[in-house]
Amino acid sequence: MAGSTSLLERFAAAVGDAHVLTDPELTLGYGTPWAAREGVAPLAVVRPADAGEAAAVLALCAERGQAVVPQGGNTGLVRGAAPGAGDVVLSTGRMGAIEAVDPVGLGVVVGAGVSLEELQARLEPEGLELALDIGARGQATLGGMAATNAGGARAFRHGTMRAHVSGIEAVLADGGRIERLGGVVKDATGYDWPSLLVGSEGTLAVITRLLLRLRRVERSRAAALVAVGSMAEALALAVALRDRPAGLEAAEFVLPGALRLVSEELGLRPPPGAGPDRVLALFETRAAAGAHDLLVDALAVAPAAAEAVVVEGADTADLWRYREGLGEALTQVDPLLKLDLSLPLANLAAGLAAIERAAREGQGGDAVEPFLFGHLLDGNVHVNLGGVAPGRVAAVTAAILDAVLHHGGSIGAEHGVGRAKAEWLERDRGGAEIAAMKRLKAALDPAGILNPGVLLPAP
Amino acid sequence: MAGSTSLLERFAAAVGDAHVLTDPELTLGYGTPWAAREGVAPLAVVRPADAGEAAAVLALCAERGQAVVPQGGNTGLVRGAAPGAGDVVLSTGRMGAIEAVDPVGLGVVVGAGVSLEELQARLEPEGLELALDIGARGQATLGGMAATNAGGARAFRHGTMRAHVSGIEAVLADGGRIERLGGVVKDATGYDWPSLLVGSEGTLAVITRLLLRLRRVERSRAAALVAVGSMAEALALAVALRDRPAGLEAAEFVLPGALRLVSEELGLRPPPGAGPDRVLALFETRAAAGAHDLLVDALAVAPAAAEAVVVEGADTADLWRYREGLGEALTQVDPLLKLDLSLPLANLAAGLAAIERAAREGQGGDAVEPFLFGHLLDGNVHVNLGGVAPGRVAAVTAAILDAVLHHGGSIGAEHGVGRAKAEWLERDRGGAEIAAMKRLKAALDPAGILNPGVLLPAP
Repeated sequence: MAGSTSLLERFAAAVGDAHVLTDPELTLGYGTPWAAREGVAPLAVVRPADAGEAAAVLALCAERGQAVVPQGGNTGLVRGAAPGAGDVVLSTGRMGAIEAVDPVGLGVVVGAGVSLEELQARLEPEGLELALDIGARGQATLGGMAATNAGGARAFRHGTMRAHVSGIEAVLADGGRIERLGGVVKDATGYDWPSLLVGSEGTLAVITRLLLRLRRVERSRAAALVAVGSMAEALALAVALRDRPAGLEAAEFVLPGALRLVSEELGLRPPPGAGPDRVLALFETRAAAGAHDLLVDALAVAPAAAEAVVVEGADTADLWRYREGLGEALTQVDPLLKLDLSLPLANLAAGLAAIERAAREGQGGDAVEPFLFGHLLDGNVHVNLGGVAPGRVAAVTAAILDAVLHHGGSIGAEHGVGRAKAEWLERDRGGAEIAAMKRLKAALDPAGILNPGVLLPAP
Repeated sequence: MAGSTSLLERFAAAVGDAHVLTDPELTLGYGTPWAAREGVAPLAVVRPADAGEAAAVLALCAERGQAVVPQGGNTGLVRGAAPGAGDVVLSTGRMGAIEAVDPVGLGVVVGAGVSLEELQARLEPEGLELALDIGARGQATLGGMAATNAGGARAFRHGTMRAHVSGIEAVLADGGRIERLGGVVKDATGYDWPSLLVGSEGTLAVITRLLLRLRRVERSRAAALVAVGSMAEALALAVALRDRPAGLEAAEFVLPGALRLVSEELGLRPPPGAGPDRVLALFETRAAAGAHDLLVDALAVAPAAAEAVVVEGADTADLWRYREGLGEALTQVDPLLKLDLSLPLANLAAGLAAIERAAREGQGGDAVEPFLFGHLLDGNVHVNLGGVAPGRVAAVTAAILDAVLHHGGSIGAEHGVGRAKAEWLERDRGGAEIAAMKRLKAALDPAGILNPGVLLPAP
């Protein structure tokens, strides 16, 4: 196609030959979501170095009505960064600078392509941190985490990514530029771009740099594993720990199927008290000093915690293996259906039971293998199901999302809507609300070139 | 005017006769901003009871192209809620319900018309709080605080209002309704209405209810007054306290002119060490227990704090008089020019000096009486100037705002842009950004009936 050749040449003029990839051997990885078995090679992958180059790329795409899929670490689960064969992927991989860390204003400016782990390594020697952590820290980029409003284990206390982005540089669909990185801590002027663009999943603009809020690291850490009799008990214990001055930073749960899987696949000894009718809870506390004693004291007054294992310092990593090792363990399950959901805390126990029921019903009554785990204090459930028949994936998904909405939950807790759940967002929200979202999208991207079909169904 | 009579009748049908005010004796107060000497009676004040009635009012206004000014406690400083003579004020005064407090999910649903003080009184017995406080707590409404993204003394630690609003109910210009109050803690689906509407100053929608984040109160409190030699010393001390595990919740500063005023007007004894070349710093710490010792220990290692007065418990209110008493003391200054600004921390000392210089220059070289104070750790400066000649108000304002922008600051730290600074927002931001803001406004309010002239200049 002469038209597309010419577009590719113009991309090359904007970002340099070496940064426009068209060879399917190179581009197929960009078109294959992290947890997916198969992908599609996009028309091209373009890798601008900065906002200026990204603006040039978007202006060219706008001129041609060419669909653009912004992509960071490609670790999402909802095909929010998954291109079609005719799409251009705009990769932020070259936007990799960590600019000066400001220990007085507690901020750092990073390129969208910096991984969370790279930032953590840069901040650690200075005693600073971004108070948000996710299992995919090695590959997930801060730009992608902002675009999807990533959450993780510490969000119940420190908020999701939205709470940590205080400034933004982004390129609009027409190549126009937004830049608000000056580091003013208190600013109530104008519509707040960070708030609007965080969580917009690449549909309103391409995020190129971020000003992130930092905090001082608390060096003393302790963790506990506690086997309790039910989700209700696990949640009550988590609330009790949260409401004491124990520095609670994480409160995770692992249900029996998931615990068995991770124990077998990683060769871990089942924790004391664990069993087929028990719920495993994992707590982490942090403090300037004495986190272990704080945690032990807090657990002592919580009756459900009779069988707690408490460790401190580097040993906390051993306990986290039961929770974070699930990512690795689940790679051994095929086929695997993954859903990321949340429930109001009042409905967490009932909602989990309903999700398991819905999975069986969606399967036509046949058994599935549920591997369920997540974050207690924000009701975030990671649903992983083995044994779903290929022809039943849609029915099982629908039954579960229905159950979640019925229990007042969210169909996307920390991965967003993507392409996978765009029609579900329409079901979840009122007509006035969806219409208003469509007007927002049209206002900033009138030609609809930015990640079409993501968040809102393609028109 | 037959047209407007008929509109008023239709308002009355929607909200009840008693809730459509047109008598200037009743409406003039709504048209007189809190800190202003004079006002204007609007066409009418309409007081809907809930979102349904507000939707009916807005639909009527949209049909007629009638401008609507949403109004809460009317405590702003930038004429963001100030109507013209032909405008309709939509008052949230009847949206006064505090719905069930959720101690597990740590949330509360409130009507937009609830005052901060009413909420504080309701939460206190339950040991819960909204971790945001402002001096105008008795009159300011939570809806207005959300619409303007209010800040206050605790924002450096807990964030401005945006960080505390997790759900919202709002009515769009066409009467369409947004409602997201379900209490899901972690939700990454769709464009985030709370984020977009908080700080939009009534230009995109009318906020009718809010879901607010709560936290457990820390009961032990201590406060310290410290006179230091310069703003740089005050800031360094504040950063040192913030970076220790001292539970710092407030770090305020009062410059000599303001300290003299508040001491004289309220009959307060000047604090030890205060003087014409000194900066008074006020710190508050909170903890589950032992806040006094934490503060004393933290001050001991901070060299600038030799002359600290430290008190605890109810006595902290005595120290706050030097800071919060300024609101009352300033009512004695006439004429008074008030500006609310912020500076990056790196430029705080230099920016303050530049502001004083700019004030004199704007006055044509003649002296002004500066009463300056604010929040150390977010760079928020409350500029109050006595003695500005009536003909010089615009020139002094312009010189100061210029100086703030030159130092990388914000022209509106916690009161927003309003009508007073709409042209300054255009100066502050790039053309692409202002154009994009106008497109957002037009997308949600195509007829431009919601608070025209606020935030963005009227077209």
